[in-house]
Amino acid sequence: MSLLENIRGPRDLKALDAEELDELAAEIRHFLVHAVARTGGHLGPNLGVVELTIALHRSFDSPSDRVLWDTGHQSYVHKLLTGRQDFSKLRSKGGLSGYPSREESEHDVIENSHASTVLSWADGLAKANQVLGRWNRHVVAVIGDGALTGGMAWEALNNIAAAKDRPLIIVVNDNERSYAPTIGGLADHLATLRTTDGYERFLARGKETIQGLPLIGKPLYESLHGAKKGFKDAFAPQGMFEDLGLKYLGPIDGHDIAAVESALRRAKRFHGPVLVHVRTEKGRGYRPALEDEADRFHTVGVMNSLTGEPLAPATGTSWTSVFGEEMVRIGAERPDVVALTAAMLHPVGLTKFAERFPDRVWDVGIAEQHAATSAAGLATGGLHPVFAVYATFLNRAFDQVLMDVALHKCGVTFVLDRAGVTGTDGPSHNGMWDMSVLQVVPGLRIAAPRDATRLRDELREAVDVSDAPTVVRFPKATVGADIPAVDRAGGMDVLHRAETPDVLLVAVGTMAEVALEAAGLLAARGTGCTVVDPRWVKPVDPALPALAAGHRMVAVVEDNSRTGGVGWAVAQALRDADVDLPVETIGIPERFLAHAKRSEVLADLGLTPAETAGRISAVLARKEAGRAPRRAAAPARKENA
Amino acid sequence: MSLLENIRGPRDLKALDAEELDELAAEIRHFLVHAVARTGGHLGPNLGVVELTIALHRSFDSPSDRVLWDTGHQSYVHKLLTGRQDFSKLRSKGGLSGYPSREESEHDVIENSHASTVLSWADGLAKANQVLGRWNRHVVAVIGDGALTGGMAWEALNNIAAAKDRPLIIVVNDNERSYAPTIGGLADHLATLRTTDGYERFLARGKETIQGLPLIGKPLYESLHGAKKGFKDAFAPQGMFEDLGLKYLGPIDGHDIAAVESALRRAKRFHGPVLVHVRTEKGRGYRPALEDEADRFHTVGVMNSLTGEPLAPATGTSWTSVFGEEMVRIGAERPDVVALTAAMLHPVGLTKFAERFPDRVWDVGIAEQHAATSAAGLATGGLHPVFAVYATFLNRAFDQVLMDVALHKCGVTFVLDRAGVTGTDGPSHNGMWDMSVLQVVPGLRIAAPRDATRLRDELREAVDVSDAPTVVRFPKATVGADIPAVDRAGGMDVLHRAETPDVLLVAVGTMAEVALEAAGLLAARGTGCTVVDPRWVKPVDPALPALAAGHRMVAVVEDNSRTGGVGWAVAQALRDADVDLPVETIGIPERFLAHAKRSEVLADLGLTPAETAGRISAVLARKEAGRAPRRAAAPARKENA
Repeated sequence: MSLLENIRGPRDLKALDAEELDELAAEIRHFLVHAVARTGGHLGPNLGVVELTIALHRSFDSPSDRVLWDTGHQSYVHKLLTGRQDFSKLRSKGGLSGYPSREESEHDVIENSHASTVLSWADGLAKANQVLGRWNRHVVAVIGDGALTGGMAWEALNNIAAAKDRPLIIVVNDNERSYAPTIGGLADHLATLRTTDGYERFLARGKETIQGLPLIGKPLYESLHGAKKGFKDAFAPQGMFEDLGLKYLGPIDGHDIAAVESALRRAKRFHGPVLVHVRTEKGRGYRPALEDEADRFHTVGVMNSLTGEPLAPATGTSWTSVFGEEMVRIGAERPDVVALTAAMLHPVGLTKFAERFPDRVWDVGIAEQHAATSAAGLATGGLHPVFAVYATFLNRAFDQVLMDVALHKCGVTFVLDRAGVTGTDGPSHNGMWDMSVLQVVPGLRIAAPRDATRLRDELREAVDVSDAPTVVRFPKATVGADIPAVDRAGGMDVLHRAETPDVLLVAVGTMAEVALEAAGLLAARGTGCTVVDPRWVKPVDPALPALAAGHRMVAVVEDNSRTGGVGWAVAQALRDADVDLPVETIGIPERFLAHAKRSEVLADLGLTPAETAGRISAVLARKEAGRAPRRAAAPARKENA
Repeated sequence: MSLLENIRGPRDLKALDAEELDELAAEIRHFLVHAVARTGGHLGPNLGVVELTIALHRSFDSPSDRVLWDTGHQSYVHKLLTGRQDFSKLRSKGGLSGYPSREESEHDVIENSHASTVLSWADGLAKANQVLGRWNRHVVAVIGDGALTGGMAWEALNNIAAAKDRPLIIVVNDNERSYAPTIGGLADHLATLRTTDGYERFLARGKETIQGLPLIGKPLYESLHGAKKGFKDAFAPQGMFEDLGLKYLGPIDGHDIAAVESALRRAKRFHGPVLVHVRTEKGRGYRPALEDEADRFHTVGVMNSLTGEPLAPATGTSWTSVFGEEMVRIGAERPDVVALTAAMLHPVGLTKFAERFPDRVWDVGIAEQHAATSAAGLATGGLHPVFAVYATFLNRAFDQVLMDVALHKCGVTFVLDRAGVTGTDGPSHNGMWDMSVLQVVPGLRIAAPRDATRLRDELREAVDVSDAPTVVRFPKATVGADIPAVDRAGGMDVLHRAETPDVLLVAVGTMAEVALEAAGLLAARGTGCTVVDPRWVKPVDPALPALAAGHRMVAVVEDNSRTGGVGWAVAQALRDADVDLPVETIGIPERFLAHAKRSEVLADLGLTPAETAGRISAVLARKEAGRAPRRAAAPARKENA
């Protein structure tokens, strides 16, 4: 039996000696490579934190102490050490989540996979410990150097540092990258910190030397201390963190369990906020990951565990790559078009643009707020920025889209990748709110292309708008075949017309395929559908009410929350035109979605041709029958007095 | 004729000598105190930047150089120096905006009054200059020390510092406060910087002393420099900014025009990012402001310019104070209830709570993201946090409300002050999107109290919810008389019933008064209304469809964007129950609103009893007449082929 199999919880770690710990670390790496090779998942980040995670669980008592992971994709080792060793269905329906999950374990606290939140969580938990007098409980937050570029991490640091007597331990897991190499002034500063291992030695020598001098030695030493930072900073520029008032320990070799434990023990004894700077190597111990410059082992699909070669290479063309290629063409024609990414150059498809136009692309770090507002500045300065970002992450910049870009009428294009149901990454990666939240932004326009041709066309239309924000959104999927229009109505593409039009089916983006198939099923039942792709879903095309007027009902199919999305906007447009038809919105119900394949999630939600057709038939049938409300509404508590 | 009257634009400043400049500064202060005393407005911040603004416009050539103001409430002096000296209708309809406004002047760039954005704007503008080869243009951004606590300022600093060869000048206007004294580790660091005026002298002495020593002097001096920061930091801990790679100049006395100009000239010559640290005194030169500990002169109403006493003291009780008093009562009963504010303790009404329970309230700085996520941590730690914040500023934390608070089912109460139309502060202070944007958040509940009693009740109901976020929203206004319920329907209060119910009027929060008066007007025309206050507007009360079913139409009156708000949610609830009635939403159209009094804005928008009644009558009349669509919708471009 392996050592790993005997670890049922953190307590079991504490009995192991140094040699066994090294053996355990090796077993965990072996397990990770083989398990993740079978299912896909986050590999590089987890290989980097094997020793750190062991040291954490030996130094603290989870769950009474809180061990918190920022972003959470590096929690596989933590899962293995807290009773979860069945990785066979990792990220699949019914299997382990790819992130911490409170349903899985009492050792998990934060499920949110958006970066840079952990310090705020930790601050709240530490304050609760203080208010409730739980002095013996520790809070330790692990955050990557990349996540420190996010503004909310700074807000939290500023608060944590202010409370000199509230214990809280921050472990900076410094591997010099997030998805991409960490950028910016902070990254340079961390690089400086890394070069100062010899600081303790220097400090000792410095003191001796100066204090031992007659006459001028003493006042100088005191002047230095009078300046509040003293010698320490002159030798070890941990300054930034200590300037904020955080005790700094490090840098520590994150692959030396004993060294990490020793630092954590020191941190635990310090009655106040401490930052422990741990250096780790992403992909540690796995050659294919270490040798890959592009960091493709951050997340992998099913692969050959020995070589790292993908076993099921992606078939078909992704929406991302269609976007990426069109951006290069646009960039060649339009020297004013520039691109922004928030630490996701590869995943959002900007690699080729960056190679071709290196001076016209900026990676701003995990900093969506800055991306949006600096885009407003770029537009005001005469350029047209395209900010390519996962739909779910644009929520971070909602205020900036509204107040900086839209209020100032800036021509900025937001390209939302991974819009709609994403699937295996779980609730916080789904991009299912963009068409609702952005709906309220005055002047903003949203395009939801149905196929590759429309993506290229609508992207070009978007970058041609110079006085308002535009959004182009598409899913994490491969593009299907082009779907031709049979007609136009206003700015909309009519995809299908029936002889006797009963239902106007409004198909948003990739839901065109579902809508057309549903129309086929309905036709077989004698119900005629007009299927229309509005192309631009916000604002509602002014021709839509007149188009709808000839039908018995309208159905809107969208890969977005039913609440506040295109369905509601269509209903409002019809009401404003006095076209009072039932508008059935077929979208995502108002809840968070557990991880599973995109196709499984869509099926569960009824975003399929059969269910779409079924729901439409049911509305028509009830309308025909003039039946009572289908849902038994609670009666008024008291009748009219 | 005064000097000030002769200043038509920045160019006129450059002809003045030192004595004239001092005279001009005195005239400006005199003007500001008397002008703002007549209209109300931001006083303290503007008195603090008189000399700084003069120096900026003498050192740069606006508008080809860009002089950018963070938040913008300190731009009055800038307005005076750029051709805008008629302050008689400041912040009133048709008068000058209280913030920069691109409609007013080519010297204004950023209109957004949300803090901490300026560095991102500056980064974008500087990048545009670089891409377009406009090397002779400067970008200078003025930001307060308070605004540096906002996360997006950090994101921007990190980006700005990364580009060593892209010129950009940051002026930190350090007055040790935002609305409240600036808090956190950063504030402590700035305090350290302020104590090091003598640094240049120390530096010189330090070099001499050590280099002059035989034997050990040289290597020590080199070690210090080898550690990359050298002596400078040991004496002047500007460290944090220089650690990021920003050239630091300061601290400079911000009331010494020549000193500020000299620093700005040095900054201009430096080909890269520079931070100029300027110390100013908020309220400078005006004794009532300087003597007021509570910083009530940040914004003032109409006042006696000599004494600073309000001339038209507020009549009636504000919603804010009702909230503040109830919080004290709740705090006394519930030791687990804690409060959070983002640099707005006074304005959001938490002063008394803070006096009574100093260990249970935290001012997190201008850091709404941190407030929301640390609230999730507090809730997970066993407390019930109440985060009181202006509705417009919660937009900054949308992602955190969704992903940290709601996804984790945390019992956190958000109290949204200044919800709906705010008025005089202009487009970016209106809190008119909260009921739309928050509508999509699974599990979140929103209460919109109609009067003081309901505010107290609903606040208590909110803090009793332990497994979901709750929101209580109210306007910037005085509370009217209580409006009794005549009946209940589900969880809703029925405020009025007619003999023959034609219209169900759903009144959201303070719109109850408008709805009741509209019902009176409609009754006179023979149209009977049921008026209902849903109390909790999200989720829609399950009893609402059944209540609506007996009517000919539904109208929803809300002080919120028509897009995505309560009206849309009600329409969806009716559709889901197969109650197909027209739902007329009477709310704020999808555009930004110029500054004017709240009552004027509401009247302009038609949120009045007369217009509400008129719109309802019109819908009923068209419905009766079965007339064609009222709005001529564009016909389909091509008929069915």
